[in-house]
Amino acid sequence: MARTPEKFRESGVDVRIRTRVDEIDVKSARVRLNDGSELAFDILVLGTGTLAIRPEIPGTDLPGVFALKKLEEALAIKAYIAEKDCRNAVIVGAGFIAMEMCEALRARGIETTVVHRGALPVNRWDPEFGKLIVAEMGKNGVTFLANVETRAIEEGAGQRLRLVTSGGDLDADLVILAVGVRPDTALAKAAGVPLGRSGAVAVDFSQRTAMEGIYAVGDCCESYHRVSRSWVHVPLGDIANKQGRVAGANIGGKAMIFPGIVGAQSFKVFGLEVAAAGIGEREAAAAGYHPVSVLIWGNAIAPSMPAAKKVGIKLVADRASGKLLGAQALGEAGAVGRINALACALWAGLGVDEIGYLDFAYAPPFSPAWDPIHVAAQTLRRKL
Amino acid sequence: MARTPEKFRESGVDVRIRTRVDEIDVKSARVRLNDGSELAFDILVLGTGTLAIRPEIPGTDLPGVFALKKLEEALAIKAYIAEKDCRNAVIVGAGFIAMEMCEALRARGIETTVVHRGALPVNRWDPEFGKLIVAEMGKNGVTFLANVETRAIEEGAGQRLRLVTSGGDLDADLVILAVGVRPDTALAKAAGVPLGRSGAVAVDFSQRTAMEGIYAVGDCCESYHRVSRSWVHVPLGDIANKQGRVAGANIGGKAMIFPGIVGAQSFKVFGLEVAAAGIGEREAAAAGYHPVSVLIWGNAIAPSMPAAKKVGIKLVADRASGKLLGAQALGEAGAVGRINALACALWAGLGVDEIGYLDFAYAPPFSPAWDPIHVAAQTLRRKL
Repeated sequence: MARTPEKFRESGVDVRIRTRVDEIDVKSARVRLNDGSELAFDILVLGTGTLAIRPEIPGTDLPGVFALKKLEEALAIKAYIAEKDCRNAVIVGAGFIAMEMCEALRARGIETTVVHRGALPVNRWDPEFGKLIVAEMGKNGVTFLANVETRAIEEGAGQRLRLVTSGGDLDADLVILAVGVRPDTALAKAAGVPLGRSGAVAVDFSQRTAMEGIYAVGDCCESYHRVSRSWVHVPLGDIANKQGRVAGANIGGKAMIFPGIVGAQSFKVFGLEVAAAGIGEREAAAAGYHPVSVLIWGNAIAPSMPAAKKVGIKLVADRASGKLLGAQALGEAGAVGRINALACALWAGLGVDEIGYLDFAYAPPFSPAWDPIHVAAQTLRRKL
Repeated sequence: MARTPEKFRESGVDVRIRTRVDEIDVKSARVRLNDGSELAFDILVLGTGTLAIRPEIPGTDLPGVFALKKLEEALAIKAYIAEKDCRNAVIVGAGFIAMEMCEALRARGIETTVVHRGALPVNRWDPEFGKLIVAEMGKNGVTFLANVETRAIEEGAGQRLRLVTSGGDLDADLVILAVGVRPDTALAKAAGVPLGRSGAVAVDFSQRTAMEGIYAVGDCCESYHRVSRSWVHVPLGDIANKQGRVAGANIGGKAMIFPGIVGAQSFKVFGLEVAAAGIGEREAAAAGYHPVSVLIWGNAIAPSMPAAKKVGIKLVADRASGKLLGAQALGEAGAVGRINALACALWAGLGVDEIGYLDFAYAPPFSPAWDPIHVAAQTLRRKL
């Protein structure tokens, strides 16, 4: 799939890897590279991505302490595990990257502890789902330490590293910092490219920044959220792909807009699918909606089938308009597919009355005749 | 879930099982029961369902020849298999019931042959998918005989039954007739309740027939198809459930409409998920649309994941409006979930340009960053 720099060059595209832009000179329309040379541009596309947030504590630069944002970091973690024969790891933070990492580390047989300053992981999701994720981690040998502040990382004695926390010290061969990311806007800011309220680069529907000839795409810029109807920073790979294509089309002379996002997202943690789309009660209330929500449990497949699996669905709707505002799902199966259907409903602005009667491809191996989506939407409708 | 007649009686509802209505007397607003007694009604709901079509050939009433429409027939087949120690079965027909039955019979260790007068099974789906279903049957020990007319069923010699076909004779312990269903409209017709063009009972959005006080729901009546914008006969259990509730609400004094269907349907055959929604090229052309279609293969999960599974997506769109008209999918995983998302897109009337940029809950265990839905929609858009 990925083309090498050589392949690009054959098509007349000059791709320079291992090259950093140190400055954008807007007036002269040139960029200065790290080797001191300059390149002129008619069009400039910012795709600077995000930076992993490093907590402001001592010791985050010690060997064996990693963030996981770039491919190089993943490779470095792998190499470190092999080289140092790591037996135990601590992950600081409990977002979806932390969840994916604890599964990956357990698959390598590494004892894993997740240290989180909050009570439950992945706070985008309802506490009822968060508790089940904690249980799933426990079943798979991951220790979850809630309400613990990490204060420092030190060189340990017998072990290689020591995490100093509000709950005591933890020894570890490996520490992964997974406390979030922020848009990498240093170049944009220095060049005077305006940022949005989220702190990411502000763009329009054609991915143009406010500065003539300069576009921005992907994790460094904002996206229009079709549910909150506001510009937000949601750094996810599928969005970045789409924005890149929209910018490219416009630069190439083809009119195209990025139609926005509905905040659809998922991750897998051991045997659980966890997914969400739209906005939660807090964001909804902040936007001036009147959120009402419901969380129900249903069967991911027909109860008459062997091994029927449970799936939980949470829906949030606006009491004033009856429109769906958000959806969350968790289950051993059938959570992501259902959220994708609901993402489409959010995209189209459907109301919960219609969602309660959507026509799905029912068959007993895949759903009950009344899908949990229908049950959730009808339950919610009665609460509006 | 299901309530017994006693439970209903406790709620003041008189439920009579093993009781047949032989006639509806509209003028006197009474029904005559099979025991000769009569019941007066203010409101009558027809829920007479469908009848399995029996092919017009000799021998369909022989012992060991079954249709599969009612629970009683399923129980009779099970009992017959156990009692007669059935070793081999022939299924006449190759619709989705035939597909589900061949899997069920193989699970019992019964040699199974599917005899079909057409070239490929489940003709709702593209021939490319049909061929893969034939291969899947073959892999699982089912013999598929294409382009074969069944002419008679006879009592066999060593075996219990003999199927006489255009392709020679077939011996079988058990014959399942799965050549389709038709709405059971005998009572409605006799009472003068108008049928629609599909042959099923005509209803409005409140499930009322054209005859005052008489409603119809489920497999015996028509449904409004939101894509073809016509009244069709789609006898499926989830639709029947919804229509029953809509009729009940209206009868009980609560205004409610059945918002229609998009023809979403799925079945499982061995390791394959097979699903569809909307309409195909032929129905689209018949409705005056200008169908253009595409069929692509993609990964059901990210190609970087172990055991990436293929999923095929076919989309049909209208060249004039750019709207999606239909979708089909087949794969070891991820087919039904994707069709449910597309069913929602069909419901909302989205165009393929938007579908190419829908925001789904991307994560590598569940999809590539560009979902096969995106790829199919973008490919189709270029063909419009």
